[in-house]
Amino acid sequence: MLRYLTAGESHGKALLAIIEGLPAGIKLDGSEINILLERRQGGYGRGGRMSIEKDEVEFISGLRSSYTLGSPLGLLIKNRDWENWQTAMDPLDPVIDMSKRVARPRPGHADLPGGIKYGHKDMRNILERASARETAARVAVGAVAKELLKALGIRVQGHVFRIGGIEADSPPKIYDEKIYDNPFYCSDPRVRDQMKLVVDTVKSSNDSIGGTIRVVAEGVPPGLGSHVHWDRRLDGRLAQAVMSIPGIKAVEFGMGLRSSIEPGSHIHDGISYSKEKGYYRERNNAGGLEGGITNGEPLVIRAAMKAIPTMIMPLQSVDIDTKEKMYAIVERSDICAVPAASIVGEAMVCWVLAEAVMEKFGGDRLEEIVENYHNYLQHVKEF
Amino acid sequence: MLRYLTAGESHGKALLAIIEGLPAGIKLDGSEINILLERRQGGYGRGGRMSIEKDEVEFISGLRSSYTLGSPLGLLIKNRDWENWQTAMDPLDPVIDMSKRVARPRPGHADLPGGIKYGHKDMRNILERASARETAARVAVGAVAKELLKALGIRVQGHVFRIGGIEADSPPKIYDEKIYDNPFYCSDPRVRDQMKLVVDTVKSSNDSIGGTIRVVAEGVPPGLGSHVHWDRRLDGRLAQAVMSIPGIKAVEFGMGLRSSIEPGSHIHDGISYSKEKGYYRERNNAGGLEGGITNGEPLVIRAAMKAIPTMIMPLQSVDIDTKEKMYAIVERSDICAVPAASIVGEAMVCWVLAEAVMEKFGGDRLEEIVENYHNYLQHVKEF
Amino acid sequence: MLRYLTAGESHGKALLAIIEGLPAGIKLDGSEINILLERRQGGYGRGGRMSIEKDEVEFISGLRSSYTLGSPLGLLIKNRDWENWQTAMDPLDPVIDMSKRVARPRPGHADLPGGIKYGHKDMRNILERASARETAARVAVGAVAKELLKALGIRVQGHVFRIGGIEADSPPKIYDEKIYDNPFYCSDPRVRDQMKLVVDTVKSSNDSIGGTIRVVAEGVPPGLGSHVHWDRRLDGRLAQAVMSIPGIKAVEFGMGLRSSIEPGSHIHDGISYSKEKGYYRERNNAGGLEGGITNGEPLVIRAAMKAIPTMIMPLQSVDIDTKEKMYAIVERSDICAVPAASIVGEAMVCWVLAEAVMEKFGGDRLEEIVENYHNYLQHVKEF
Amino acid sequence: MLRYLTAGESHGKALLAIIEGLPAGIKLDGSEINILLERRQGGYGRGGRMSIEKDEVEFISGLRSSYTLGSPLGLLIKNRDWENWQTAMDPLDPVIDMSKRVARPRPGHADLPGGIKYGHKDMRNILERASARETAARVAVGAVAKELLKALGIRVQGHVFRIGGIEADSPPKIYDEKIYDNPFYCSDPRVRDQMKLVVDTVKSSNDSIGGTIRVVAEGVPPGLGSHVHWDRRLDGRLAQAVMSIPGIKAVEFGMGLRSSIEPGSHIHDGISYSKEKGYYRERNNAGGLEGGITNGEPLVIRAAMKAIPTMIMPLQSVDIDTKEKMYAIVERSDICAVPAASIVGEAMVCWVLAEAVMEKFGGDRLEEIVENYHNYLQHVKEF
Repeated sequence: MLRYLTAGESHGKALLAIIEGLPAGIKLDGSEINILLERRQGGYGRGGRMSIEKDEVEFISGLRSSYTLGSPLGLLIKNRDWENWQTAMDPLDPVIDMSKRVARPRPGHADLPGGIKYGHKDMRNILERASARETAARVAVGAVAKELLKALGIRVQGHVFRIGGIEADSPPKIYDEKIYDNPFYCSDPRVRDQMKLVVDTVKSSNDSIGGTIRVVAEGVPPGLGSHVHWDRRLDGRLAQAVMSIPGIKAVEFGMGLRSSIEPGSHIHDGISYSKEKGYYRERNNAGGLEGGITNGEPLVIRAAMKAIPTMIMPLQSVDIDTKEKMYAIVERSDICAVPAASIVGEAMVCWVLAEAVMEKFGGDRLEEIVENYHNYLQHVKEF
Repeated sequence: MLRYLTAGESHGKALLAIIEGLPAGIKLDGSEINILLERRQGGYGRGGRMSIEKDEVEFISGLRSSYTLGSPLGLLIKNRDWENWQTAMDPLDPVIDMSKRVARPRPGHADLPGGIKYGHKDMRNILERASARETAARVAVGAVAKELLKALGIRVQGHVFRIGGIEADSPPKIYDEKIYDNPFYCSDPRVRDQMKLVVDTVKSSNDSIGGTIRVVAEGVPPGLGSHVHWDRRLDGRLAQAVMSIPGIKAVEFGMGLRSSIEPGSHIHDGISYSKEKGYYRERNNAGGLEGGITNGEPLVIRAAMKAIPTMIMPLQSVDIDTKEKMYAIVERSDICAVPAASIVGEAMVCWVLAEAVMEKFGGDRLEEIVENYHNYLQHVKEF
Repeated sequence: MLRYLTAGESHGKALLAIIEGLPAGIKLDGSEINILLERRQGGYGRGGRMSIEKDEVEFISGLRSSYTLGSPLGLLIKNRDWENWQTAMDPLDPVIDMSKRVARPRPGHADLPGGIKYGHKDMRNILERASARETAARVAVGAVAKELLKALGIRVQGHVFRIGGIEADSPPKIYDEKIYDNPFYCSDPRVRDQMKLVVDTVKSSNDSIGGTIRVVAEGVPPGLGSHVHWDRRLDGRLAQAVMSIPGIKAVEFGMGLRSSIEPGSHIHDGISYSKEKGYYRERNNAGGLEGGITNGEPLVIRAAMKAIPTMIMPLQSVDIDTKEKMYAIVERSDICAVPAASIVGEAMVCWVLAEAVMEKFGGDRLEEIVENYHNYLQHVKEF
Repeated sequence: MLRYLTAGESHGKALLAIIEGLPAGIKLDGSEINILLERRQGGYGRGGRMSIEKDEVEFISGLRSSYTLGSPLGLLIKNRDWENWQTAMDPLDPVIDMSKRVARPRPGHADLPGGIKYGHKDMRNILERASARETAARVAVGAVAKELLKALGIRVQGHVFRIGGIEADSPPKIYDEKIYDNPFYCSDPRVRDQMKLVVDTVKSSNDSIGGTIRVVAEGVPPGLGSHVHWDRRLDGRLAQAVMSIPGIKAVEFGMGLRSSIEPGSHIHDGISYSKEKGYYRERNNAGGLEGGITNGEPLVIRAAMKAIPTMIMPLQSVDIDTKEKMYAIVERSDICAVPAASIVGEAMVCWVLAEAVMEKFGGDRLEEIVENYHNYLQHVKEF
């Protein structure tokens, strides 16, 4: 059983993560994490904060001489803005700088429902944790999971599929990492200018815009997840993981929504066989999953992210002290965070696949897992 | 902690479910379950099996004189077709009627990936459990969860939103139960004829068709789920539950995909306040969830179901013995199962909400939960 | 992840169990379960009920032609006494035979704390589930786990170590199954007569007596459980499982309590090595566990069971209606249930080991698990 | 659901803990944690390390101005010895000081089984995490749980009951905190000198000694835990938590082992009632638990700790490179760690009770929990 917990407020001291259940023998030197942390901070349309901080992971435990020990991996990512916020966010100081108090909740955020739930009249106590900054810890965790998958030849990549109404015309596959050189993390060079135009236009009207991310996993063996119980279905588990990313409002696999419009004869991926490839499909409308189980084809997930609700143009709200109609507070904000979300989506998919791999192949040493894995691939071949 | 397990093959003796963690004092007489079981079996476009069986629940344990005891609730639903299948499916008999063997896996089903995973050269061993018949047990479980919710004034209802390309023009709300009198479980009377035409057309070409279900929950208090950790977010948990229904390929909340296309100023639901209603919204694009937490507005979930892959017109496959190209076997099949899926969707949403309610309000007696709930509603009012 | 739920009241229709997460390919024909069910019902000192019922398992699902499918295994054990109790225990009938009501709770049972917790003024609603009859379902589940372990060469056996003050003088090891021919399930023939005398004496004074069970597992590989996180330690998990058996008040591993009295130099099991055996120990004071991990030596657990609190000689209680001092009700009872408890202990140890095996070796087919297991044993040998 | 993870090696940078699921509004200023950390480091018979380090907690997240936010609480405890160990334990440096390598595993520790499991030929990779230093993180976590319990009037205290053969003659109850002024954490002043003599004698022979701890919880309401499913029984859950403490080999509740020797009429705690106290018992042989449920009497747990296996007088082992017979390495060591274990036991009991409280009473704000709790106490009173 692989599991993790994260902690940390957006303007607190640091983000923390503990990953428990990792096998021994995974090589990590921090660079694999830092690259993904940097990508998460990048992308066209980000606000001012991203230039303040350049996230870097510090290993606290579970690693020795660049190899995992099998004990819990402790990760820490400092918040570089902390010194500016200590007077408002100190864990212990009984006197707090109240100028940072939030009394006018922002629609579209956890501010109001979270404030009610936890009884916080200062909704900063909610937004500090509900902030998408929390996803930096997830990205670090996902980067570790990715290294485990890599040892089995499973590759995972997220990218941007659509910004507002501008959709890429590109097949769902793993791309050269150069796609992250462009600030849209988009594999289709022809639409990037249009995407830029959309974001610039939205920015000039103090508004925000969303889009769709796509995550693809190649080299996934058939047989991850299971049909035998609802909560073992990998599509469900992936859907939870991706839907839990802030701002995501829709998740699709493969042909997704369209497979509910076209007749069955157009949809299903006929089964073929060749000695070299074993069983395979000519097309992959199912997105790599049948009956909640991976079928050996690439996993393809799309997720739609709403336009970010923290806009410079504020939204209608209520002052919770006076109950008067007011504009919501405006917190430092992005115009478009879809590129960042594609990196978070990649991380979440890596995590779920790593969980599924550990369940299916067991093992406490990376070598043991790889050995069990190859035995299984042999079985697949002979089926 | 509320949890359940189900068991049962499609042509085995029976389906089973055990629900563990229910409070004492919920009134059940079976009718609330049987009505939903009947709805699940109904709907326009079902195949022949539905007339064979009329599901009825039998309580094995956990209930006395129509009230839950707090001990595990044991549910059993007999498969009325069992006697015809015993020679092929007997748990113990070493001699099995091999005429029911499945060697040509059906695309779009768990047959092949499940066969590989579990090493079954007779893929009947997979499809018997992967069959949507399993959802009858989920519906029974969801019906129990629904009674718990009812005691708190939370109402949940699933209905059909779209069949193929025919979409209802009806707001997301709880409808009179009369909508189940029409075999499309659709609240918009104007489109039912068109839906019938779609299904009939598809049927005449031996094809199948999918659609979209919508589940709405009203009376949900603000504060279920949480932003504090990714796996507590209620949108993620609901997405898993609904995506795990066989055939579902996309899940959306509220405005869903469209909220990723329009600018932020069009999307977010401004916050208002009145003495009578407390905090409320003029519109509900978020679908009742902000930051992974319910916000007091109705919960609105849509899910797209692909066209059923078991068609009379068979799909390309491979004989796993000879590896020759063959048509897939044809198992008894529906043309369209979207109405049934709406009932399963309702059940899964009931379950997740019941889990969230038990986490938030604790308690071992229904009265205790209701009391804790009302204290919380008082807090909400005073916030 | 292997998991199970049980359900069923002592005088209800039946006991149920669902086991989820089993690999495909385990051979079961019911006899392996029924033998253990019979042993659980036997033993010297049992009350009248045991002659009424002879438990037999019925497979509802998850099994075909005597092999597990990988889908949830559904087990049902009928309560043969049901027809005599239906008027008092019917799940649905609104009119209940109130002569069976329990208003004078029995000390030492869940009656009173359970009645308060669940708000049952008729404490039959508690004792029906708190009854040790529930352990029949656990024994059935454990018998299935035992078959999985058997395929890896891991053998588990429970027996009686002590009744009252009479302790067997026998080493902790797996005995010939003939020990169950004597009604004390005790491997030391010299003390059986004394045990009989103790039970007979206690019986003649309408009293009850407890004792100690011992469960031994041989063929356990080193490396099950882990030191890396508190809840992965196998000693803790075994302790929970065994302590959860009704009546158990103490659990010990290996030398147990005595290892806290003698100095360290007397306790620890020096490490030796030979080409044939690999690493081994000359003695096994640790009971097969070091640092929460199995060390390759036999697992040895002892658990002390209190004297059963349902005695013919009743205990002081209170009538919960009038609050007057009264004797507790007397429910049908055993004099000594230690032999039965040894079978339940065996079942719980089998379960925990099966969980640990599935975590360590993964796999969905029994063959795959065995293959992964043998690869691991090779690694152990080469270490 | 309350949960936590810890991380950290004994000579690594720091210990970490993340507690997830805490309500908002618990007051923490660090002193409540630091006092328990200091007690854990104290006690007669500790080795040299304890003087090096004085543990202090640092709050990384989840706390603002001394109140919990409801978000994950991140705790960090620096290892003050880190600078001396960095060359041997650096997470990243590919060149490691190999003089600290462990190739001769210590009997009684995780060294050998852990080395085999995780494939570490340098068993320092095991012992660094298996070290009891890990319990410092548990103590910090338990101290937080204790504050939650305190708000409900539940008090928990661990103390030393026995060292070697010297047993205190003191009733199981909460003592004045002054008992920690004596280095045996023992409430019976008459035996402390004898305990000192035992430890000094053992020390002079380079040996080690164990003993028994006792943890008592007062103010525990009836109704925590449940009889309805084996894994809900609170005795089982407490047994796991306490047995998971390094060195613990036996766990008992109330009268424990002795209740398996004496006849039933001597054991069970008759039920009484008075208007002032409600239901109560004249004695508490059950240790506060019946049927796996708290019964309102004090919870009483004893746990026996073996003599520490890291002795100055080394034990027989094998060099894993040469397979030759050798003495085990000698790592810095204590003579007797029973006083420290009593503090860890207290922490684990606090944790399990806090979990049980959150399950039974729900709630996200401390006030809400307290309110639900008082409503329940009213129900208890009226039963």
